[in-house]
Amino acid sequence: MTLDEKIQKFKEWQFARSAYVMALGVVELDKMTIAPRGGDAYRDERIAYLSGELYSLSTKKEILDLFKELKDDEHVDFVIRRQCQLYYEEAMKNLVVPKEEFVSYQKLANESYGAWIQAKEKSDYSLFEPYLKQIVEAKKKMYSYRRKKENLYDQMLNDYEPGMNQEKYDAFFTAVRDRLVPLIQKVQATKQIEDGFLYKHYDVEKQKRFMDELLNYLHFDREWGYQNETEHPFTTWICENDVRITTKYLEDNVISAIFSTIHESGHARYEHQCSPDCDGNVLSEGISSGMHESQSRLVENYLGRTKAFWVNNYPKLQEIFPENLKDITLDEFMDAVNVGKPGLVRTEADELTYPLHIYIRYEIEKGLFNGTYTTENLNEVWNKMYKEILGVDVPGDKEGILQDVHWSSGDFGYFPTYALGSAYSAQFMEAMRKDINVEKELEENHFEGIMDWLKEHIHQYGCLYTPEEVMLKATGKPFDVNIYLDYLEEKYSKLYRL
Amino acid sequence: MTLDEKIQKFKEWQFARSAYVMALGVVELDKMTIAPRGGDAYRDERIAYLSGELYSLSTKKEILDLFKELKDDEHVDFVIRRQCQLYYEEAMKNLVVPKEEFVSYQKLANESYGAWIQAKEKSDYSLFEPYLKQIVEAKKKMYSYRRKKENLYDQMLNDYEPGMNQEKYDAFFTAVRDRLVPLIQKVQATKQIEDGFLYKHYDVEKQKRFMDELLNYLHFDREWGYQNETEHPFTTWICENDVRITTKYLEDNVISAIFSTIHESGHARYEHQCSPDCDGNVLSEGISSGMHESQSRLVENYLGRTKAFWVNNYPKLQEIFPENLKDITLDEFMDAVNVGKPGLVRTEADELTYPLHIYIRYEIEKGLFNGTYTTENLNEVWNKMYKEILGVDVPGDKEGILQDVHWSSGDFGYFPTYALGSAYSAQFMEAMRKDINVEKELEENHFEGIMDWLKEHIHQYGCLYTPEEVMLKATGKPFDVNIYLDYLEEKYSKLYRL
Repeated sequence: MTLDEKIQKFKEWQFARSAYVMALGVVELDKMTIAPRGGDAYRDERIAYLSGELYSLSTKKEILDLFKELKDDEHVDFVIRRQCQLYYEEAMKNLVVPKEEFVSYQKLANESYGAWIQAKEKSDYSLFEPYLKQIVEAKKKMYSYRRKKENLYDQMLNDYEPGMNQEKYDAFFTAVRDRLVPLIQKVQATKQIEDGFLYKHYDVEKQKRFMDELLNYLHFDREWGYQNETEHPFTTWICENDVRITTKYLEDNVISAIFSTIHESGHARYEHQCSPDCDGNVLSEGISSGMHESQSRLVENYLGRTKAFWVNNYPKLQEIFPENLKDITLDEFMDAVNVGKPGLVRTEADELTYPLHIYIRYEIEKGLFNGTYTTENLNEVWNKMYKEILGVDVPGDKEGILQDVHWSSGDFGYFPTYALGSAYSAQFMEAMRKDINVEKELEENHFEGIMDWLKEHIHQYGCLYTPEEVMLKATGKPFDVNIYLDYLEEKYSKLYRL
Repeated sequence: MTLDEKIQKFKEWQFARSAYVMALGVVELDKMTIAPRGGDAYRDERIAYLSGELYSLSTKKEILDLFKELKDDEHVDFVIRRQCQLYYEEAMKNLVVPKEEFVSYQKLANESYGAWIQAKEKSDYSLFEPYLKQIVEAKKKMYSYRRKKENLYDQMLNDYEPGMNQEKYDAFFTAVRDRLVPLIQKVQATKQIEDGFLYKHYDVEKQKRFMDELLNYLHFDREWGYQNETEHPFTTWICENDVRITTKYLEDNVISAIFSTIHESGHARYEHQCSPDCDGNVLSEGISSGMHESQSRLVENYLGRTKAFWVNNYPKLQEIFPENLKDITLDEFMDAVNVGKPGLVRTEADELTYPLHIYIRYEIEKGLFNGTYTTENLNEVWNKMYKEILGVDVPGDKEGILQDVHWSSGDFGYFPTYALGSAYSAQFMEAMRKDINVEKELEENHFEGIMDWLKEHIHQYGCLYTPEEVMLKATGKPFDVNIYLDYLEEKYSKLYRL
C-alpha cells in the first residue's frame, strides 16, 4: 500500500467508526431523556452488541498497525498523526486488559451501582463498602496490566487530565485549601446575604418560558442545539452541528435550572465550535475533563453570575415572576446568586466552596490507592474532613460519602478535574479581557463576541493539543492557580465587604 | 453443521440484525422529532453507512443459504421457519435489483421528493410531472427484474398487502363506490350537523393536559410508550416494550390531535401486544399495511367515535375548555365528531368519505401501470374524478394531485391498504361484539378488556400468519366488504336521519 492508500484506508475506517459512535450516542441520549423504561433491557443488550462491534473495529490488528505507522510518519499531516496517536493510545489501554477481566469488571460495576443506590436510599455506607472495596482492588488490577512505572493513581489522574499527576494536584489543592479555608471562615463570620426570595414557588411552565429567552440570549441556536429535561443535567454531542443539553426544573428554586442551563451551554459551545478537522472523530471527544469543565464553568460563573450578564435578562425574569421578584433590585439579585456558604452536597455547592468539596474527594481517593485509607470506616474519614475543611456536620451517609455516583462505577481520578476546570477558567478570562471588553459584550447582548474569542483561542483546537499546550496558546503562560484564587478572594471580599 | 448449530447461527444473526434495526430506528425517530436540523447531513451519511452494513448482513450468501434451508425444513419450529421465509423473500426482492440501479433510484427518489415539495408550494403539477414519469418508469424496471409472471401493479399491491391483487381490489372498490357514492349524496342533501364549535380557539397547552388524561383512559402506559410532537403524526416501535407515537396540535381544531392520538395508539398497541416470539425480529415488523391500519382505524373510528368512549372523556374536555364546550351536550359533540362531508384533502377526510379518496388514487395508479393513463395531464384526471366521485371542485394542484407525498418516493400500491384497513376493522368489530360487550367496557373505563381481545385474536400473531389467515382466525370467515359498508350505511343513516 502507498502512503496515500493507507491514509485513505484510515479515513474510511474513521468514517465507519463515526457511524457507530453516532448511533450509540443517539440511542444513549434517547435512553437518558425520553425512552420508555420498559424497553431498557432490550435496548441495552443491543447497545452492548454494537459497542462490541465498535470495539472490534477499533482494536483489530490491521488497524492498529495502521495507527502505529501513521502516527509517527512525518510525511503525514499533523491532524491525522494526532488522530492516530489518540486512537492508538485508547486501543492499547483497552487491549492490555484480558477480555474476561474486562467483562467481570463490567459486571462488578453494575452490581456496585445497584448497591450504591440501595445504600444511599438507606443512608448506610456499610451496605456499599464491600463493593467499593472490590472496585478499588479491581481498578488497581486493571491498571497494573499497563505495566507502567508511574504510580497507579497518577495514571488515573492522567487518563482524565493528560499531563496531571499527584505532585501537580497536591500543589494545586494545597494552594486552594490554604487560601480558601480562611476566606470562607471570614465570609461566614460576617453579615449574610438575603437570598430567600430565590427559593419561593416558581411555576415550572413559566421557568421554561424564561429559559427560551435565556437560550436566545446565549445564542444557543436551535439549528445546532436542542434542550431536553433529565433528572441529572448533562451535555452530549452527536456532531459539531448537533449538540444536546438537558436541565432539570425545581418548583422551589428559580436559579437551579437557569445556572445548570448556562453551565451546559458552555459544554455545548465547546463542541459546536471545534474545527471541521475535529468533527466526527476522536479530536472532538473532549481534550480532557478539566478543559471541558473550564468551558462550562467559565460561562456559568465568570459570565453567568455577573451583573453585565443580567442587565438584559433580569427584567425578563422579573416580568415573568412579579409575585416574587418585583421588589428585588438587580443588585440584590446579583448578591443572592453569588452567595458563598458551606454545605453538604457538592452538586449544590456555590462557586466559593465548590473546590473544597473536590479537595476532600481527592485526598480520599489518593489515600485509597496509596494505602493511607482503606474502604473500612471511610465514611468517618469523610465526615471528619467535612467538619475540618468546610465546618459542617454530616448528618448521615446519604448526604455524606454516598452522595456521588462516581466511585460506584470506579471513576477514580475524575473528581479533581472539576476543581481544575474552574481554575483554568479564571486564567482564560484574564487573557480574554486583554482582547475584548467582556462586560460591554454582555451588556450589549453580544454574546457571540465572547464565544468567538473562545472559539479562536480554545474551542477550535478540539483535541489537537494537550491541555497544557492549549493553556499556553490561549493565555501565553502555564497554568497558575493564583489567578483563580486572586479572583475568588477579590470577588468574595467585595461581595461580603470583608 | 448440525441442525441445532444452524438454528443457533440463525438466532445469532437475527440478534445482530435486531441491534442495527434498533439503532437505526432510534436515530430515525430522533431525527423526525427533536434532532437539530444542522446535524441532518452528518447523521444521514452515517445512517446510510449503517443501513449498508445491515443490508450486507442480510444478503450475504451464507445467511441466504441458511434461510433457504431452514424455511422448508419440517424439523424446524414453525416460528423460525416463518422468520426465515420472510427474511428470504425480503432479501430476494432486494438482491434482484442491480446495485447501481438501486443507488440511482435512491437518487431519483430524492430529487423527485424535492421537486414535489417545490411543485406543491407553487401548486403546479407540471413541475413535478417529469419526475413522476421517471419514477413510474424506474419502478416498472425494478419490478421487472423479479421476472415474475404476475402483472407489475399486482406485485406492488401484494408487497404492501400479501394476498391482494387488482382483481380483489377492483371488487372491493367497486362495492365501496357503488354503495358510498349514493349514501354521501343523500347525506349531502339533508340537514347538516353543526360542528363549528370544534374549530374555535383551543389553547395548545390545555389540549396537552387533556391528552394526558386521554392516554390514561387508553391505558397507554408510559412504561412502554412515549408521545412526542411532529408535523406529521406517526407511530414507530423499537420493541414490544418501547413504542413511540407522535401527534400535532392545532390551535383552531380541538379534535385533530385527539383523533390522531387515538389512531396512533391503535398502531402502538398492535406492536406492544405481539407475542415474545415476534419481538425484535421480522415477525413484529407489520404483517401488512392494511392489517396495521385496521388496528389504528378500529381504535380511532369504531371505539374513539362512539358515545360510550366519550361518556367518561367528554366531561374532562368540557372542564378544560368551558369557554367553548360548556353549552354543548355530549350528543351534540358526538354528532359533530362524526360529520360526513366530502372535501379535497385525504388526511382531513372523515370516516364516510375517506375510502373514496383512496379509490381515486387506486384507479389512477392502476391506470399508470397498465397504460390507461400517462403522467401527462394527470392532474386533470385527478380533478375530474374528484368532481365525479366526491362532487368537489379542485381549485389547484396543491389541494389536488400534489397533496400526498407517496408517489414522489414511488410508493405505489400503498394507498389501497388505507381503505382496506378501515374495512377490515368493521369485520373485527363484528367478531369482537360476539365475545364482549364493547360499549360496557368503554363506559366502565375498562379499555384493557377490548385490547385483550385484540391481543388474543390479532396482535399476538405479529407476522406469523398472512392477513387472510388472521382474518379467518379472528372472525371465522374470509374478508367481506359488506360488513364495512353495512356499518357505514347504518351509522350515517341514523346520524343524518335518512
